[in-house]
Amino acid sequence: MASSLLHCSDKLPFLDVETILHMKEGLGETSYAQNSSLQKRGMDTLKSLITNAATDVYISQMPERFTVADLGCSSGPNALCLVEDIVGSIGRVCSHRSSSSQPPPEFSVLLNDLPTNDFNTIFFSLPEFTDRLKAAARTDEWGRPMVFLSGVPGSFYGRLFPRNSVHFICSCSSLHWLSQVPPGLFDDDMDGGTPINKGKMYISSTSPVAVPLAYLRQFQRDFSLFLRSRAAEVVAGGRMVLAMLGRQQTEGYIDRRTTFLWELLSESFAALVSQGLVEQEKVDAYNVPFYAPSVQEVEEEVRREGSFRLDHVQTYEINLSSSGDAKEDGRTVSMAIRAIQESMLSHHFGADIVDALFHRYTELVTESMEREDVKSLQIGVVLTKL
Amino acid sequence: MASSLLHCSDKLPFLDVETILHMKEGLGETSYAQNSSLQKRGMDTLKSLITNAATDVYISQMPERFTVADLGCSSGPNALCLVEDIVGSIGRVCSHRSSSSQPPPEFSVLLNDLPTNDFNTIFFSLPEFTDRLKAAARTDEWGRPMVFLSGVPGSFYGRLFPRNSVHFICSCSSLHWLSQVPPGLFDDDMDGGTPINKGKMYISSTSPVAVPLAYLRQFQRDFSLFLRSRAAEVVAGGRMVLAMLGRQQTEGYIDRRTTFLWELLSESFAALVSQGLVEQEKVDAYNVPFYAPSVQEVEEEVRREGSFRLDHVQTYEINLSSSGDAKEDGRTVSMAIRAIQESMLSHHFGADIVDALFHRYTELVTESMEREDVKSLQIGVVLTKL
Repeated sequence: MASSLLHCSDKLPFLDVETILHMKEGLGETSYAQNSSLQKRGMDTLKSLITNAATDVYISQMPERFTVADLGCSSGPNALCLVEDIVGSIGRVCSHRSSSSQPPPEFSVLLNDLPTNDFNTIFFSLPEFTDRLKAAARTDEWGRPMVFLSGVPGSFYGRLFPRNSVHFICSCSSLHWLSQVPPGLFDDDMDGGTPINKGKMYISSTSPVAVPLAYLRQFQRDFSLFLRSRAAEVVAGGRMVLAMLGRQQTEGYIDRRTTFLWELLSESFAALVSQGLVEQEKVDAYNVPFYAPSVQEVEEEVRREGSFRLDHVQTYEINLSSSGDAKEDGRTVSMAIRAIQESMLSHHFGADIVDALFHRYTELVTESMEREDVKSLQIGVVLTKL
Repeated sequence: MASSLLHCSDKLPFLDVETILHMKEGLGETSYAQNSSLQKRGMDTLKSLITNAATDVYISQMPERFTVADLGCSSGPNALCLVEDIVGSIGRVCSHRSSSSQPPPEFSVLLNDLPTNDFNTIFFSLPEFTDRLKAAARTDEWGRPMVFLSGVPGSFYGRLFPRNSVHFICSCSSLHWLSQVPPGLFDDDMDGGTPINKGKMYISSTSPVAVPLAYLRQFQRDFSLFLRSRAAEVVAGGRMVLAMLGRQQTEGYIDRRTTFLWELLSESFAALVSQGLVEQEKVDAYNVPFYAPSVQEVEEEVRREGSFRLDHVQTYEINLSSSGDAKEDGRTVSMAIRAIQESMLSHHFGADIVDALFHRYTELVTESMEREDVKSLQIGVVLTKL
């Protein structure tokens, strides 16, 4: 996920993302662990990009210890499967090389997320994970794989690891989360003021132009801080694969593939307002700390920061209507958004409204999916540290 | 805490310590976090030993990154206070040195415990911890201290960290936990057999001689594996400060300062048996994965393993009757033992009996404290990697 506000003197309009935003903990029906198949699908698309980039770094440097970090790992099964792929891929490279002078590396695996993330659930699954790695990694005298895993709590908008200590970083479906709701969404930020993005929680076709600009500026501040922080941590020649929700520049700020699900959430709120369950003022004052950048906006910050070379960029669509059953797909999407948003919604509106909200939301998403395929757009980039 | 069984072909009589043993999670009335003041008192005694040893290593090596590990950190406030002392002490050394050519190091702090430990509670307190460190450590351009903290889940009876990666290790009040209940406590280990330590859960004056020998052998296997694992991880010249409950050799296996609280727990069980709340057979079959070694036994394993030099050893008593109010002290001790033992007791006897058990236990501990001061004995050793 994402956060930290220290670098920015702007006041925080509503909430401290670092304290509040987290994926729904545990393994229950509404948990993130049980509702992250969409994120998994995005990661599968990126899988070869990630394993190839990591393996290339290993081959070019052959370090005795290969350090990999996953930023915004969350608490579901996704947290460990990328790591498994990387370890497996490098393990295969080592076993295919005839030179026995270079044994496979020891792996140091750093799983990062905000301090409020449910790390316990990841750690509980560690013994199974270790068992699965036995075939892929070098093992010790007792047959245990030399993969050393740790959890690193903290915002990736700021330093997380010691200088020059990481060979490869990946971050999937996290960098579209901003460190805070952007300042500038009220007509007078100093005194609270009146919300300028009424009835909406993200950039919408009815938003005044100040809204997308406020979001863009926040993305620029956050992403450049992310790059500066990683520049200190990644060794020369090390790589990062970053994937996030994004949009096509040709669509302006309103690419339906990133705004549509927020629009339906605003509509669901409108229904609750009309039933008297939620006050309109509360809805007007709610905005999400989210931004889907364009490829150009990502490239621009990489160029401006200057520590990384952009090796590869691609966009890819994920069809959220993948099963063909609108009811099933609608529920999947709705539960995914709930696992991501519940902590923030409960904080702003109270926990009572969440069930009713997502009941309506599931209906709306399902209805849309009955009419058409719903898709999201992801941007994937590969960066090399200069 | 402690565990891992992979190195040992003996069968596990009762339970998988790695899966079951953990300090009571969370921050509630019976949690370890609220009931670890005894452990804290032991740590205060060791504090100068630890900070001096860590600072000496720093001064002799002056690394740009100084890596510290706390093994068996548990989930209470103790987890971070030793780290704070170390960072503070090294920070003061750096600020007193006139040579400005060597900036203070970046700290990498590795907090280890079993995968079932409640790491979430430690991580939740991280923002406060970071605030407290600001004065002591080097800070980045936004004033954040360069102290990188991570949680490392796993048994310290086995490898936890990459080769040659750690400068200083401390472990307080954890190494008296064995990786398993020793084999050999039943007359026929292969078929379950009859318990030989009836009515007792640890070495007692009524235990047959096979009982202390089974415990000693398990300690020797575990502690030598601990030393071998750390030998791979600690840099040459790095140090470890290890503190654990122990006994004076002159007392044989029954040093009242380590057996007394287990005796009272056995007595509490006897009361529950006489009330028909617990079956005698269940009590007979319960033994704790705990061993309080003598100084000589610790020294012997260090010498035999051969990778560390024993620089310093001391024993010290901790008066558990410290407040002088037997009722208050009795409750403190009882709650501490409960926080440590609850997970294992619940697993063996069911959760229903725990309240009744500790009600009786508190009474017995309080009665003892009304008659005399109750003390525990700790061993502290400082080891240097050759």
